Amino acid sequence: MKAYRISHGGQIDGLQLEDIVERPLEPYEVRVRVRAVSLNYRDLVVAKGMDPTKVDHPVIPCSDGAGDVIAVGSMVRRVKPVDRVAASFFPHWLEGRPDRSKVRNSLGGDVDGMLAEEVTLHEETLAKIPDQLGYVEASTLPCAGVTAWNSIFESSDVRPGDTVLLLGTGGVSILGLQLAKAAGMRVIITSSSDEKLVRARALGADVTINYRATPEWQDEVLNQTGGEGVDVVLEVGGQGTVTRSVASTAVGGTIAVIGGVSGFGGEVNPLTLTLGAKRMVGIYVGSRAMLEQVARLVAETGMKPVVDRVFPFAEAQEAFRYLESGAHFGKVVIDLTQ
Amino acid sequence: MKAYRISHGGQIDGLQLEDIVERPLEPYEVRVRVRAVSLNYRDLVVAKGMDPTKVDHPVIPCSDGAGDVIAVGSMVRRVKPVDRVAASFFPHWLEGRPDRSKVRNSLGGDVDGMLAEEVTLHEETLAKIPDQLGYVEASTLPCAGVTAWNSIFESSDVRPGDTVLLLGTGGVSILGLQLAKAAGMRVIITSSSDEKLVRARALGADVTINYRATPEWQDEVLNQTGGEGVDVVLEVGGQGTVTRSVASTAVGGTIAVIGGVSGFGGEVNPLTLTLGAKRMVGIYVGSRAMLEQVARLVAETGMKPVVDRVFPFAEAQEAFRYLESGAHFGKVVIDLTQ
Amino acid sequence: MKAYRISHGGQIDGLQLEDIVERPLEPYEVRVRVRAVSLNYRDLVVAKGMDPTKVDHPVIPCSDGAGDVIAVGSMVRRVKPVDRVAASFFPHWLEGRPDRSKVRNSLGGDVDGMLAEEVTLHEETLAKIPDQLGYVEASTLPCAGVTAWNSIFESSDVRPGDTVLLLGTGGVSILGLQLAKAAGMRVIITSSSDEKLVRARALGADVTINYRATPEWQDEVLNQTGGEGVDVVLEVGGQGTVTRSVASTAVGGTIAVIGGVSGFGGEVNPLTLTLGAKRMVGIYVGSRAMLEQVARLVAETGMKPVVDRVFPFAEAQEAFRYLESGAHFGKVVIDLTQ
Amino acid sequence: MKAYRISHGGQIDGLQLEDIVERPLEPYEVRVRVRAVSLNYRDLVVAKGMDPTKVDHPVIPCSDGAGDVIAVGSMVRRVKPVDRVAASFFPHWLEGRPDRSKVRNSLGGDVDGMLAEEVTLHEETLAKIPDQLGYVEASTLPCAGVTAWNSIFESSDVRPGDTVLLLGTGGVSILGLQLAKAAGMRVIITSSSDEKLVRARALGADVTINYRATPEWQDEVLNQTGGEGVDVVLEVGGQGTVTRSVASTAVGGTIAVIGGVSGFGGEVNPLTLTLGAKRMVGIYVGSRAMLEQVARLVAETGMKPVVDRVFPFAEAQEAFRYLESGAHFGKVVIDLTQ
Repeated sequence: MKAYRISHGGQIDGLQLEDIVERPLEPYEVRVRVRAVSLNYRDLVVAKGMDPTKVDHPVIPCSDGAGDVIAVGSMVRRVKPVDRVAASFFPHWLEGRPDRSKVRNSLGGDVDGMLAEEVTLHEETLAKIPDQLGYVEASTLPCAGVTAWNSIFESSDVRPGDTVLLLGTGGVSILGLQLAKAAGMRVIITSSSDEKLVRARALGADVTINYRATPEWQDEVLNQTGGEGVDVVLEVGGQGTVTRSVASTAVGGTIAVIGGVSGFGGEVNPLTLTLGAKRMVGIYVGSRAMLEQVARLVAETGMKPVVDRVFPFAEAQEAFRYLESGAHFGKVVIDLTQ
Repeated sequence: MKAYRISHGGQIDGLQLEDIVERPLEPYEVRVRVRAVSLNYRDLVVAKGMDPTKVDHPVIPCSDGAGDVIAVGSMVRRVKPVDRVAASFFPHWLEGRPDRSKVRNSLGGDVDGMLAEEVTLHEETLAKIPDQLGYVEASTLPCAGVTAWNSIFESSDVRPGDTVLLLGTGGVSILGLQLAKAAGMRVIITSSSDEKLVRARALGADVTINYRATPEWQDEVLNQTGGEGVDVVLEVGGQGTVTRSVASTAVGGTIAVIGGVSGFGGEVNPLTLTLGAKRMVGIYVGSRAMLEQVARLVAETGMKPVVDRVFPFAEAQEAFRYLESGAHFGKVVIDLTQ
Repeated sequence: MKAYRISHGGQIDGLQLEDIVERPLEPYEVRVRVRAVSLNYRDLVVAKGMDPTKVDHPVIPCSDGAGDVIAVGSMVRRVKPVDRVAASFFPHWLEGRPDRSKVRNSLGGDVDGMLAEEVTLHEETLAKIPDQLGYVEASTLPCAGVTAWNSIFESSDVRPGDTVLLLGTGGVSILGLQLAKAAGMRVIITSSSDEKLVRARALGADVTINYRATPEWQDEVLNQTGGEGVDVVLEVGGQGTVTRSVASTAVGGTIAVIGGVSGFGGEVNPLTLTLGAKRMVGIYVGSRAMLEQVARLVAETGMKPVVDRVFPFAEAQEAFRYLESGAHFGKVVIDLTQ
Repeated sequence: MKAYRISHGGQIDGLQLEDIVERPLEPYEVRVRVRAVSLNYRDLVVAKGMDPTKVDHPVIPCSDGAGDVIAVGSMVRRVKPVDRVAASFFPHWLEGRPDRSKVRNSLGGDVDGMLAEEVTLHEETLAKIPDQLGYVEASTLPCAGVTAWNSIFESSDVRPGDTVLLLGTGGVSILGLQLAKAAGMRVIITSSSDEKLVRARALGADVTINYRATPEWQDEVLNQTGGEGVDVVLEVGGQGTVTRSVASTAVGGTIAVIGGVSGFGGEVNPLTLTLGAKRMVGIYVGSRAMLEQVARLVAETGMKPVVDRVFPFAEAQEAFRYLESGAHFGKVVIDLTQ
């Protein structure tokens, strides 16, 4: 079986395809033939050695994949061949609130991830994927989809009819746009590209703001919300956006802090939270139960996650570099069937 | 009728007793004879001109008072003479989530407060106080009590048996200690004074930490919680404590940001929230419904808010100065019956 | 000013148009010119003398209306002429959890309602209606819209992607269908009419069941949900449906008990709730905050409440009789501009 | 190894001690030496053949036990010898909301329970017990303690200072009394015995009602709550109490339906829920996470569950019969160390 491996800090060049000998299945384990793997900014973070789950041995990278169950251990009952499945980002965070033990390991961080022809996982980490989604689309749900879901539906106190602010057009933001619109919310989105904003509008965005043309975009957000501000912002962590995000948020609203693209360029003065009764919630992906619920919503609404570009398995390095370029709108995916 | 008035930024010396002519009651208004007024750090903030609700005319200062209803307007039905009442910090935040209109005015900030022989308020802003509390004790509930309540019971996801961290022995922290113990929680509290820590232990504190003797007190908090951290910390905003407070908090836990004693000396890197799935919640006092619930809990448990020292009405400047000194343990109160 | 009045138990024949002399506005009151009034089954209940808020004097009937502000009292600040508004069912339930004082009065029950050319209401009871809705459509929101909203979004623990069961095609059920679909949910709906089920499907219903053709419809609900049952059912109280509704509900799911069409023909054995960890929640309309949130969702999504038939003001008795016939699909409305 | 076994419906006489050969541990399994087993009314229900999880083979009865870990499988990491543990009632309901798969099996119902010298369980079903509790006391937590916890703290919307109504002095009610008082609530409790009411008052009950002396006890509950009613009632299902419990509950309050002593003698008219906006929530014990939280609260407060009487292992039938007699106040426990 072939799989990519990478050392934390080994850079994109360090991403190498290797032959791996698989061990036998334990009673609760499941073997999955991976069909597609979706990239997240966090995979670049691992390559660059900036991931918090630093380990000193190479790992199979990437958390987000979808495939078919091809074999199950003797005690497995949650899935069977040939169920179509994805794996949860944190193998031990099945549901409920996070705690230290639940975020102990993460796929493609300190334990082996999904960028492999076959992976072996505990049955509890798996969720079935919607019938109408191809593997390429389904592979986007575990990290990006769950992060967007957790931000909007679990960690914020928002309801249908409320307003969501999205920053940029990366994977989490575009999935956030799709999920928010599917759930009856109003969406404001920013980008430096008018062309990307046109595409966002086609996906349902109600208000679009070019932050290059409108550098004080928080004023425009307030203007578009009658001076109130948005109910939740998905703060994906671009340079210097945090303070503007807080200013864009309504009294009593939530800033979902996701981290990402350029680290966090600014710091936050807690007093701005106090005087607005605002909440800044760290979003560390989410649980398997959230993944199942995202899958349920996607299945129900027929939503298709936006995939920007697909690379074949052999071109994983190119896929990482394309993600790094920031040119994408939505997700970058590696298709193992190509 | 006599009342103190102060200009924002007029300093403690600017606090002057004046004769005020009362206007007739509107149909929904209530006249209250004030019996006791409790001071909050925020009252110093107003005196020093640092309050966000800056106004350019003098106001009657202080939000926290208790007294008797002595007259009611023609349409009033919530209270009657001679009910014993306190007033809510925000006259328009009656219940539910905060929004911009609800935190528009605040007693002793941009509208007249409680440091007066008599005050006139809309009936909706009033809550009855527990029978077994004297006016001096009851006067501590509207700002300090509600802030502690909101932090622990409304804005955090804590349950009986969870652990609360309190910083210092000021009014909010000591009321937080009393409320948390009444509700079955474990309490860790810090101070620079061993003598104050002994008093905190007598009130039920389970773990006490002298932050002068243990400057890396967050390590001791982790040590005392099996490495997990606390479920919620009431961050009252001392110089440089915020980063340590975040480090003291469990994965999935809450930092209730209250503001206060020395402003916020540090800023927060949002990434520390993300990687711990932690939530930093701005606490801007709370609603009248919270005040009523605090009163209910106090009535039920027979809890007596800790009052450090009582000053007569004529010595309001001295009371402000004593609060400013930071020597207190619990609340500083002005007794209008003296 | 002309208004209908009715005595509780006076039957539909007792609904009489009268000339009413209006009193001057109190400081917090608002005069509204009513443009449309929507009927609810509860209005028949009042006519038949079965409403719990029995009073011994005639009242202006109906809770659901929309119109224009034409005058305001001296202290009013929430609305101004000529805002377009609707009134909340319970004048005193503004937000938060219900309590005894909040459900003390209800429009068209024990206090005067909306079936009048002009009404006089406290400003706090009013909510603005969405710009894109006509008065006829907007008049459907206060009782029927809020009841459906409360059932699905406030009193149940459902999320986008979950499944809602609706019984019949009356006003609450069809508004529930529209709200649930707007919020990303799956909808199963029953009717005795295939023609009505076709219309429900056109509005987005995912599964339709003719309960005449399938008397054991709870089995079909389970069949359509993989044996799990639905996450919430809006139990509008048809004869003998409650037991089937409980059986249709998933373990951990909610039966929202709304009451209505034929009273409740059956009783419930609480043990069926225990063994399914199910919750039966009484829905007594809802708060003004819920009305505002429904209006926000309707405005955001462009949803148009389904109106079956419109009657002119002069034909109020005919409108009541048409509602009584049960022939409708969606709402029956009286248009005061006709 | 010796264990009792019983056939569903085999009556108390059918409870027989047998020699059982233990099978080897699977990788995730744990062997526990049982030290104490606490009885629940549900164990009588199994003996009488009325349990919903009917099986046609004998099982080891009883869900509630405490003991020491004596051996662990190769993959176990949650516990180690000689941790002191209890087992969760439902082996598959670890946390979060219940669903069909989570309540599939129950200890002492359709899978083997705890009335044995040694038991073999999946590591995930175990929770550590508080250090300061003996095994006899700790054995009361899994079913009775969790049921009381779930009723008050998970399934109701109650806060410190609210009022809880408890019916009778059985195991769930007395644990409910202890938990509610530990969490700052007001408690009203009923019994037919003045002597038991004196004991309840010694445990902190605020109001006691002899339902024999006051058959219309719901009127007295309303009287003791200023006409409002209680925030939650733990309805343990005595003959004819349900209707009175609903009447005793405040508008917006919760009836936690537990089932039990005499089945449910009455049925409920759903309309009484609607007109009071009341919620009737089926409590089917609870999750392992709830068990862990109960243990945390017990550890924090030093609470000692009330044990009425302890029987040696050899006298299990006598213990069952004593429970059946209804003479107890608190829990009946079998001590395997005797």
